[in-house]
Amino acid sequence: MDLKLVVNKRTRNMAIFSFLIVCFVISADIASSCQNTDDFVGASSPGDIVIGGLFAVHSEMLHPEEHPIKPVIQNCAGFEIQVFLQTLAMIHAIEMINNSTLLSGVTLGYEIYDTCAEVTKAMASTLRFLSKFNSSKDIVEFKCNYSDYIPRIKAVTGASYSEVSMAVSRLLALQLIPQVSPASSAEILSDKIRFPSFFRTIPSDFHQTRAMAHLICESGWNWIGVIATDDDNGRFALESFGVQAMSNNVCIAFKELLPAYLSDKTFHTKVDHAVEKIVKETRVNVIVVFMRQFHVLKLFKKAIERNVNKIWIASDNWSTAVKISTMPNIRQLGTVVGFGFKSGDISTFQDFLKNLHEKPTENNKFLGEYIMLLSVCAHLEYYDFQMCISNQSQDDLMQNVENKQHIWRDDFLNANIEPGFIHSTILAVYAIAHAIKGQCKDRNCKDPSAFTP
Amino acid sequence: MDLKLVVNKRTRNMAIFSFLIVCFVISADIASSCQNTDDFVGASSPGDIVIGGLFAVHSEMLHPEEHPIKPVIQNCAGFEIQVFLQTLAMIHAIEMINNSTLLSGVTLGYEIYDTCAEVTKAMASTLRFLSKFNSSKDIVEFKCNYSDYIPRIKAVTGASYSEVSMAVSRLLALQLIPQVSPASSAEILSDKIRFPSFFRTIPSDFHQTRAMAHLICESGWNWIGVIATDDDNGRFALESFGVQAMSNNVCIAFKELLPAYLSDKTFHTKVDHAVEKIVKETRVNVIVVFMRQFHVLKLFKKAIERNVNKIWIASDNWSTAVKISTMPNIRQLGTVVGFGFKSGDISTFQDFLKNLHEKPTENNKFLGEYIMLLSVCAHLEYYDFQMCISNQSQDDLMQNVENKQHIWRDDFLNANIEPGFIHSTILAVYAIAHAIKGQCKDRNCKDPSAFTP
Repeated sequence: MDLKLVVNKRTRNMAIFSFLIVCFVISADIASSCQNTDDFVGASSPGDIVIGGLFAVHSEMLHPEEHPIKPVIQNCAGFEIQVFLQTLAMIHAIEMINNSTLLSGVTLGYEIYDTCAEVTKAMASTLRFLSKFNSSKDIVEFKCNYSDYIPRIKAVTGASYSEVSMAVSRLLALQLIPQVSPASSAEILSDKIRFPSFFRTIPSDFHQTRAMAHLICESGWNWIGVIATDDDNGRFALESFGVQAMSNNVCIAFKELLPAYLSDKTFHTKVDHAVEKIVKETRVNVIVVFMRQFHVLKLFKKAIERNVNKIWIASDNWSTAVKISTMPNIRQLGTVVGFGFKSGDISTFQDFLKNLHEKPTENNKFLGEYIMLLSVCAHLEYYDFQMCISNQSQDDLMQNVENKQHIWRDDFLNANIEPGFIHSTILAVYAIAHAIKGQCKDRNCKDPSAFTP
Repeated sequence: MDLKLVVNKRTRNMAIFSFLIVCFVISADIASSCQNTDDFVGASSPGDIVIGGLFAVHSEMLHPEEHPIKPVIQNCAGFEIQVFLQTLAMIHAIEMINNSTLLSGVTLGYEIYDTCAEVTKAMASTLRFLSKFNSSKDIVEFKCNYSDYIPRIKAVTGASYSEVSMAVSRLLALQLIPQVSPASSAEILSDKIRFPSFFRTIPSDFHQTRAMAHLICESGWNWIGVIATDDDNGRFALESFGVQAMSNNVCIAFKELLPAYLSDKTFHTKVDHAVEKIVKETRVNVIVVFMRQFHVLKLFKKAIERNVNKIWIASDNWSTAVKISTMPNIRQLGTVVGFGFKSGDISTFQDFLKNLHEKPTENNKFLGEYIMLLSVCAHLEYYDFQMCISNQSQDDLMQNVENKQHIWRDDFLNANIEPGFIHSTILAVYAIAHAIKGQCKDRNCKDPSAFTP
């Protein structure tokens, strides 16, 4: 069991109730749309061996209203500080490895892409990962046998959401490119026949749902509700929890699913419906929540309005989310019991964050965007600052071009760290590095064709 | 409601109990492995506008035992007559359209690939679909905007299994290539946010599971068991049926999942386990089966051995399967109540089959393989003939090169027709043709760049 129990009562109530959306006019050459292939990469650095990264740095892709829809990659909205921190953790781990003797002279590079929490964007990135090394254009060659093919990258860290990891893994399997996810916990990803090149540095949901059912049973809460995001992760967690609940004689009074995509027009109605259910089912005092952070935020906002007071069981992906624990009036909701992952020492990463403002932004669009957001939202504090950052779309930022006002907030980044995910991201990079070390024992890995993925 | 109820009692008992595997030495340049890209295509014909096809003509991909596994497309085994017939239905529909005035001078071509019921092989085919039109090599270009990109094919018919359709659809969505499946019924595929370019010519499982639950409730069978294949289709059907069963007060006594891939080593143990469960749970007289045909066959074989006698509720994908209804001693199993799809007039297809033996095999490897199998299994009848055909692997056929002994069996092909699937395949092609007609109203569609997918 790799899980530990965290009673999550951090409710720093720094709320200012009147919330202002500010539109500073700032310079922005960063949050650009995808015009050519290099625009598409979020952060990169060259190296003898390049590792790909897939992270949901934004929580939503912006879909145009026009019809017919076109096959074009769109801009994104909803900057996620904690996922941004994960991309930094990946970069930090690679820099540490390059500064160490682990790979003896072979340097690691990286290419990190934003999935915007959508499969389509992740598939486009994956197509680029599979493209031919050193080709003048980004092209993937169709082959019956990829044994001698040299792709652009040798391994992938990511993705965040299980649904995205699963889709991406189907494509990476063609070339058997190893993929190590620091966050996708769906049980099915352990199936080596379906996902032969998938690995992860967190435990599968099996352990978590078993622990939850056990906790619920031991606490005598045998009449509960479950709410999940309607994506592969939520659905598999629900299934897994259902089995565990049954064997612990815990009865599920209701199950509610909320649409995975924020662009889904039924989203708000369904959140209302779920809150209504919670209010009505007065016998249910415990609610298990397998949801994306963004969804928890939306649900809790409405639940607070309706004066709901329950015991909430939090799954790993939101149990330590600072943006949830710092919501105004979160304390009214009752008690949140969260499950999280074991973390390790991440002090070197905290040092890395302290020097982050000195880093150049040319090769890191996420960092550029963050700095821009810092300026836009500069005058706000904590929760409102948080909201301000996640409410800007890339389109908005691009329209506000001029006047930079750098205010660096170390404390804010540090406060948003979710240690478990940072640790598992660093672990994922190290796992790849150790595999590379094994491959490079008896060949010259400075040569990109030294080994195939 | 597009479903009709079929009480499936066709039990032509042509069994010969001693079953011989025969090894004729025959000529085979057909069932070749994938050495170059043209080997990879199963059947093709040129045309102004080319349509892709994805069908599980074989039920299994052969995985080599060696480790480490390599990124190589392998040969397949388990020739599926009824899926082979679907590929022929697609070809027949395209020929009919080309001989009609529907597209006024514009000819349709096709490129059909065998998925071998596995996602990886289907993804490889999809990669080829996405590759650039008229390029000297099969390459897919990475782009931020595919609005002006001309892919090799303009639309896809397929795939058979929902799990495969889902994965393929994720990749086709990049270029928004329309995909019309004649067989994938998983409810989730109706989600237009996830699968924007997916369509189908059969109803979603929602209608079927609702009808099943209703039938079970009306018949007073309120204590039942469910067995499903552990793939996306089985799991979604189970979920959907669970909801419908609950609202009809039908109680599910047990749920069993069997591994989707025949190459999974736990397969036989799990079949044994499921049969054991059925034998033990004496109160359960009705069993709902959401399984791939091949799995039903394996389950029933063991159930017959154990003298099981129950009422079986068959889902669309196996309710009309001839290879199941002609199993030896199938009558002992009890009653099979099957759900199937409405069919239309397929008499032109039956005429097409009559002339099939005159068709050239160069551009149709499936037909070539079938003819070869006819020779190998020539001396057997019905059920044993069926088994003989599905038990040959492509590797075996390749080893047996020489001595052709053509024995054409019209009756056999006709007996294996599952009218619902043949009809939905023809419908899928016509749906695509009508869409093309709409596109070509005001431009010259002989020019491949006349419209993008």
